[in-house]
Amino acid sequence: MIEQVLAYAKEHEQENLDRLKDFLRIKSISTDPKNAGDVRHAAEWVLNLFNNCGIEAEIVETEGHPAVIADTGPVEGVAENDTPTILVYGHFDVQPAGDLSLWDADPFEPVEKDGKIIARGSADDKGQVLTHLLAAEAWKKTVGKLPIRIKFLVEGEEEIGSPNLDKVVEEHKNRLSCDCVAISDTAKLDWDTPAITYGTKGMIYKQITVTGPKNDLHSGAFGGTVTNPGNALCRIIDSLRDDQNRVTIPGFYEEVQPLTDKEHEMIDALSFDEENYRATLGSPSLDGENGYSTLERRWVRPTLDVNGLYGGFMGEGQSTIIPAKMSAKVSMRIVPDQDHEKISAAFDEAVQEAAPPGVKVSIETFGCCAAYACSLDLPAMTAASAALESGFGKKPVFIREGGTLPILPMFKDILGADTVMMGFSVPDCNLHGPNEFFHTSDFWGGIRTSIHFADALGRGV
Amino acid sequence: MIEQVLAYAKEHEQENLDRLKDFLRIKSISTDPKNAGDVRHAAEWVLNLFNNCGIEAEIVETEGHPAVIADTGPVEGVAENDTPTILVYGHFDVQPAGDLSLWDADPFEPVEKDGKIIARGSADDKGQVLTHLLAAEAWKKTVGKLPIRIKFLVEGEEEIGSPNLDKVVEEHKNRLSCDCVAISDTAKLDWDTPAITYGTKGMIYKQITVTGPKNDLHSGAFGGTVTNPGNALCRIIDSLRDDQNRVTIPGFYEEVQPLTDKEHEMIDALSFDEENYRATLGSPSLDGENGYSTLERRWVRPTLDVNGLYGGFMGEGQSTIIPAKMSAKVSMRIVPDQDHEKISAAFDEAVQEAAPPGVKVSIETFGCCAAYACSLDLPAMTAASAALESGFGKKPVFIREGGTLPILPMFKDILGADTVMMGFSVPDCNLHGPNEFFHTSDFWGGIRTSIHFADALGRGV
Repeated sequence: MIEQVLAYAKEHEQENLDRLKDFLRIKSISTDPKNAGDVRHAAEWVLNLFNNCGIEAEIVETEGHPAVIADTGPVEGVAENDTPTILVYGHFDVQPAGDLSLWDADPFEPVEKDGKIIARGSADDKGQVLTHLLAAEAWKKTVGKLPIRIKFLVEGEEEIGSPNLDKVVEEHKNRLSCDCVAISDTAKLDWDTPAITYGTKGMIYKQITVTGPKNDLHSGAFGGTVTNPGNALCRIIDSLRDDQNRVTIPGFYEEVQPLTDKEHEMIDALSFDEENYRATLGSPSLDGENGYSTLERRWVRPTLDVNGLYGGFMGEGQSTIIPAKMSAKVSMRIVPDQDHEKISAAFDEAVQEAAPPGVKVSIETFGCCAAYACSLDLPAMTAASAALESGFGKKPVFIREGGTLPILPMFKDILGADTVMMGFSVPDCNLHGPNEFFHTSDFWGGIRTSIHFADALGRGV
Repeated sequence: MIEQVLAYAKEHEQENLDRLKDFLRIKSISTDPKNAGDVRHAAEWVLNLFNNCGIEAEIVETEGHPAVIADTGPVEGVAENDTPTILVYGHFDVQPAGDLSLWDADPFEPVEKDGKIIARGSADDKGQVLTHLLAAEAWKKTVGKLPIRIKFLVEGEEEIGSPNLDKVVEEHKNRLSCDCVAISDTAKLDWDTPAITYGTKGMIYKQITVTGPKNDLHSGAFGGTVTNPGNALCRIIDSLRDDQNRVTIPGFYEEVQPLTDKEHEMIDALSFDEENYRATLGSPSLDGENGYSTLERRWVRPTLDVNGLYGGFMGEGQSTIIPAKMSAKVSMRIVPDQDHEKISAAFDEAVQEAAPPGVKVSIETFGCCAAYACSLDLPAMTAASAALESGFGKKPVFIREGGTLPILPMFKDILGADTVMMGFSVPDCNLHGPNEFFHTSDFWGGIRTSIHFADALGRGV
């Protein structure tokens, strides 16, 4: 049965590429209010694709840009509770083009060159999410039905932080219920190796403001008599990490999940090129928490970083003041099973504790989001792995990500579902930058993978 | 003989006040090129005053605004080498008026009110320097000559940092040679108590720049793998002071002069009101190097202060970056006999030493100036003390100053002369601010003091 579907996809490769180009021509830039009509246009484009192949779909309004919800429906002859059900999440909105002079061509007039489709949104996420839509279409156009039930939630606000997504999911909770969420909005390990991302870090973002005297003071006339908020801020921040680069906040590591032996083996097997990584970043050397490898620190160890410092005299030359106020932006990336609210409170307490006498410290919390990781033994994980191997001809690796995806704990909270992230694009695809691209072979490989994914889950692989 | 001179000054009090008002009407703002003509006008005003009472004077050109040099000449009947010789230094340029809406009247149309002359430059320094000119005039107009030799150096670039003063002093070294420099450009201790300032701190100003990765990095994707320049900068700065607020730079305190018993007694005798001082600055509490009183820390202990911190994300809200670069402005106020060049080098070494691996640190030095203090046993000091007591009817206190006056070590270096600073204005005279004022009684007291000063030195008091 699947041979027929794959053959259909093969026959329609060029046609599908043309449809991707169509999709990419829509300037669905969600960050710019004047493109609101284009974002809606992209929603309608997605809706039509579903309608044209007989998949029930609907545009769902939000306070911002709309989303599209679709559903391939129950699988005939299988009890609804026994039907494997997947929710495919993706987005049809894109980043602004940025500096047009850095693009080789119009970002919204796709160019096919050297095996790539070059256009804004080609990889993030129009090209990637479209693979799943076209795979479902291939099933419908050939077999007439899917081996599993697939629901779709494709939104138009991802690039502005999905401000209304949790409301949509909450409101349509039953309609979106599923065994697992599938997302293709990440990358492969490299050009050749497909990857499944199974964990992300959470984030807690803080702004610390230290105040001392009511006005900036002359550092000569008054130096030595009051606590300097600048020195105090440095003391506070430095107290948060020891000389092994371990975070000193009490209880910080208490609930950090150690790596399993299997995870250790997987990371070691990647034979990560440290020198190449260092050279790419341009750092004099790699460094971080003692006792852990670079990839472990990057993916599975919590971190604490200064994002910005500001206050006092920041101009050219010299001005001899004791600043009245000094601020820092500090963020932590946390990992399973650290409790973000507990760590956030412990941070505040540690900062107040470290403040020297003579200053007042206030702390604002801008973001506080849980980490996410799921078991490698989920049925959907096994199916995704087999599907990627079939779709790309190479076994995928399982990786984690230092970044934060608030939607993952959100899906887990509201729908009770874990998420499998199958990345089809390459890590250097110029995401958010000029000349963003998606390999045509990866586009077709993604469609094949999605066809295999449904098949594998249907067969209970 | 002095009675005659004092009587003359008394008779001419109102006339002298009118002449001060004349002087204050000249908008000799040295910071603004469009007032260059006014600064020259002020120089000519000073020149005329000397010429009109028979004191030889000359306008000296510089690369910037001119200065005036004057000389009362050898004292008849005394060998030139035995003639006590004083160099009075002052300045006729003023700060800009600043925000005019904060002034109660035109800053350059002096108002006499509540026993004050209110105008820009009234205290800093036209009113104060004029006392010495008018005292010399009083001697000339009565006795016909002075009991000592007084030379004058009145400049027009003090408010822009005296960029050409050292050249002028070097060029006219022989003409300006003296036993001691006298300056009235500081303040009394309070409204009632005259003060002699006998020491200032030196200053070393540094800019530290810490660089890590070549670009700002995503703190999620790359956090934990490279040294964060922000965290590194905080570590470096915090390493420079211990938890007793002592500077940890090796050798930092080695050459610090301990206070003499006499100095201790003098400071204790001031019965400084700590709570009032704290409330004025608005700091939650007073703090600094352990083991020293507030006034000791302020006047005679070296300090190390952050003046500014900047780098990374400094806007509203959150941006999750590892900054490529982070900078700090840090200054030290040093005291006798710390060697500014040695301390500057030791600072650089300590900063490099404290830098964690994975970052590069560069250090720029913007200013490096020695501290200054002179013996309380100088003949001019004894004479000044007696003169202030006679002029103001109250024994002066001897104080030091946390600020830096590069001209003091400059006079010491080039002329080999120490400096006595007799302050006639009050500490809250709105120096550099709106409604700057000088008490008329202090103006007259200053003239009397200067008359007594010449007399006392002439008599060898």
